[in-house]
Amino acid sequence: MTEFEMIKRYFYREGSGRPEIVLGNGDDCALIQSTKTLAVSIDTLVLDTHFTAEIAPYDLGQRALAVNLSDCAAMGAQPLAFLLALTLPELNSEWLQAFSRGLFAEAEAFNLDLIGGNTTRGPLSITIQIMGELDQALMRSGARVGDDIYVSGILGAAALKITPRVALGLALQGIAHAAIDISDGLIQDLHHILEASGCGAQLYEKMIPCHGTLEKALYYGEDYELCFTAPAQCREVIQALSKKLNLPLSCIGHITPGPLFLLDQKPLEIKGYQHFR
Amino acid sequence: MTEFEMIKRYFYREGSGRPEIVLGNGDDCALIQSTKTLAVSIDTLVLDTHFTAEIAPYDLGQRALAVNLSDCAAMGAQPLAFLLALTLPELNSEWLQAFSRGLFAEAEAFNLDLIGGNTTRGPLSITIQIMGELDQALMRSGARVGDDIYVSGILGAAALKITPRVALGLALQGIAHAAIDISDGLIQDLHHILEASGCGAQLYEKMIPCHGTLEKALYYGEDYELCFTAPAQCREVIQALSKKLNLPLSCIGHITPGPLFLLDQKPLEIKGYQHFR
Repeated sequence: MTEFEMIKRYFYREGSGRPEIVLGNGDDCALIQSTKTLAVSIDTLVLDTHFTAEIAPYDLGQRALAVNLSDCAAMGAQPLAFLLALTLPELNSEWLQAFSRGLFAEAEAFNLDLIGGNTTRGPLSITIQIMGELDQALMRSGARVGDDIYVSGILGAAALKITPRVALGLALQGIAHAAIDISDGLIQDLHHILEASGCGAQLYEKMIPCHGTLEKALYYGEDYELCFTAPAQCREVIQALSKKLNLPLSCIGHITPGPLFLLDQKPLEIKGYQHFR
Repeated sequence: MTEFEMIKRYFYREGSGRPEIVLGNGDDCALIQSTKTLAVSIDTLVLDTHFTAEIAPYDLGQRALAVNLSDCAAMGAQPLAFLLALTLPELNSEWLQAFSRGLFAEAEAFNLDLIGGNTTRGPLSITIQIMGELDQALMRSGARVGDDIYVSGILGAAALKITPRVALGLALQGIAHAAIDISDGLIQDLHHILEASGCGAQLYEKMIPCHGTLEKALYYGEDYELCFTAPAQCREVIQALSKKLNLPLSCIGHITPGPLFLLDQKPLEIKGYQHFR
């Protein structure tokens, strides 16, 4: 099996046929034509940094796309297409088949097409670049003093199986002022919103939905839930949305003029997952 | 220096301010709004596969973007923006400074913005995803029987310093029927055009512009010149273009009904650089 045969066998699938994708796999570039704003993001998973050799390749394929879908969700974008840059130590058919099945299961669940990529020999690493469409972005910089602060789901689980909150992100357009996905821990990620918006926050311990310890819920990464802010008059709409999506949306505090970032009366230490220290 | 400080210090530059880039670095996604067709591509350079530890980081930064620019060129696209996924074994300020200088030197030379990315700890690897704009794409599938086959530059040099043929790609719109960049060797890459267009080719040894041996010119990768086909009535226009760009554009043969792929009277073996065999 050559590199080209491998790519055709495992990574060419019939596309969704939507008109925005003018040209998919197999040329120097793929071509996209959209009348909307395109949201673009890139994320890498590296062996021994993000996962161990024990991970099932199916789960790895699914997860590699899910972490990127989470970025789309945090921006309020509808996923459209993605590119895959795959670095492999060898061509192992069994591994590739399971990996591509996991990848395409996730792609089909969220209705987006693999439109191009690149295969390279080297230490196992997966980089995906995702493109989504939106009318109005949920940016980190939009939080306003008095906004309620919400998180989706229950924090601290850091489950192997990520559920990207794409439907939530889409539904929050016109409701949320700011949003981010929690990949490096609630406190560190919410702090990005506070920095970008130039404000502070007051959180309440008893309002934070936890699996296990509070420490985990605050500082551990890889929850891939959304943290967002919204004005108080949206409380009922958000409650209704929670019911509709069958997903907890918990108010955990509110935005203050800053600069303090408090949990009850205690200033929070800004820390979370970082690759380099 | 934390990961976030590193990113800000070395990878945030003032953008070109063009209106298509709605939002650059610093949110979950970057935002692009274009009325044209977007050409998108992704390419990875891995230590010990594409370069050795001896490479100067400045050269590596430049090259990582150049190989992607070459894909834009082959499609006839005007480069717009790129995303960088950087996997590093450690944060080394000296290395990062030189790498980012090389990267931005290339970005400025071709007037495109770094609009987002991702940093990860792991074995040294650079993935860049590039976006360009075009009105009419130069696809691999457009070659027609009777077309002349051209290559730019002189083959077989595989120089460290790539010169992406962006200006040539742009100028070939409305002239060339098909194009590809030569990253894996002339024969293998031209064969992609033949496959996609459903035709054959007749090449002539004495017309192929070589540095050194013919073997190198035919089968060695990393020239990053363009190979394209154009109808015979474009010969004068192409000669004028060669003069204007100060770049050799050599006719090396012509497209045949196929399936034979010949060099003079000899069938060519389809081989070139492949990561896996």
